[in-house]
Amino acid sequence: LLSVVVKSKTMRNKTTKGLVIVYTGDGKGKTTAALGMALRAAGHGMKVLIVQFVKSFKSYGELKFVKKYNCGIKIETMGKGYVKIRGDVHPFEEHVKAAKKTLEYAKEQIQSKKYRIVVLDEINIALDKKLLTLKEVTDLIKQKPPELHLVLTGRNAPKKLIQLADLVSEVKEVKHPFKKGILAQKGIEN
Amino acid sequence: LLSVVVKSKTMRNKTTKGLVIVYTGDGKGKTTAALGMALRAAGHGMKVLIVQFVKSFKSYGELKFVKKYNCGIKIETMGKGYVKIRGDVHPFEEHVKAAKKTLEYAKEQIQSKKYRIVVLDEINIALDKKLLTLKEVTDLIKQKPPELHLVLTGRNAPKKLIQLADLVSEVKEVKHPFKKGILAQKGIEN
Repeated sequence: LLSVVVKSKTMRNKTTKGLVIVYTGDGKGKTTAALGMALRAAGHGMKVLIVQFVKSFKSYGELKFVKKYNCGIKIETMGKGYVKIRGDVHPFEEHVKAAKKTLEYAKEQIQSKKYRIVVLDEINIALDKKLLTLKEVTDLIKQKPPELHLVLTGRNAPKKLIQLADLVSEVKEVKHPFKKGILAQKGIEN
Repeated sequence: LLSVVVKSKTMRNKTTKGLVIVYTGDGKGKTTAALGMALRAAGHGMKVLIVQFVKSFKSYGELKFVKKYNCGIKIETMGKGYVKIRGDVHPFEEHVKAAKKTLEYAKEQIQSKKYRIVVLDEINIALDKKLLTLKEVTDLIKQKPPELHLVLTGRNAPKKLIQLADLVSEVKEVKHPFKKGILAQKGIEN
């Protein structure tokens, strides 16, 4: 998974390179794709850390999964819930504090070299909502160990992030069942 | 995961409804998102079957994963490899035969009700390359058990399929490392 070779002029000195991967757009499938990537990597025996920004909800299927199967995927959910929407009971400063703390945690884990892949889930939303500065995130990217794959998800990824990334996919919503009068029960996102 | 309620006029007679989900587009993340969905569903204790059309390569990370962890996800890879591109050594008829056989297998498994989610991976490519007819696939969709979630992946999903689906995401390629002179080693897709 994701092992790549930087093409040298002679094609002799091949070196593996960790990729910076961005999943953005308004469609369903960004976090889901990061989870699929984690599953593949775990199949290859790689350790994966998923750090969830903004999200606070603890009963997602993926959390149940990693509790049940000791498969080398760790998930840390460290947000305070969605920002400035209905149901948001936290002052803005609390969201900022949580995001900064999550970023610090991610940095430490990235530098520890315990993981081959680190997913910064919904970090683009943390940027979009001004919980983090662009510089904080680009510094983290620039300082990552060269072999580590870093995955950043969430809608509205800033242009600068897309420029820095190696692989960018935009997931566009073409059709969503909520708009057809079908309601989520356990939550279509979980 | 994916359990939904059809909103009735009275909001009393809630019934769960299996969704038809399409991941299409030219970007990376379609099969990967289906895998993430499988992981979430497995977290909830649901059984998942992934049937891979067109693909023939057997050493993907996801195959290793499901061999290692007995987590309720089954993968069957039943294609003959990519059609009419460099490296395709099979006559077209063999691709057709493989696709028809794969579809028959998928139908049987869908009707068996052993699985809560069935992923028809790359079936859109099988349609695009005329290995299957649109009617064969729409019939399969119309005949599925109501509670079963069906996920169809692959680029160039036909319009008719999008009309039939409940949830459609288009994964667009914004940036791909192959275009930056970075080559896949073990394969960026596996």
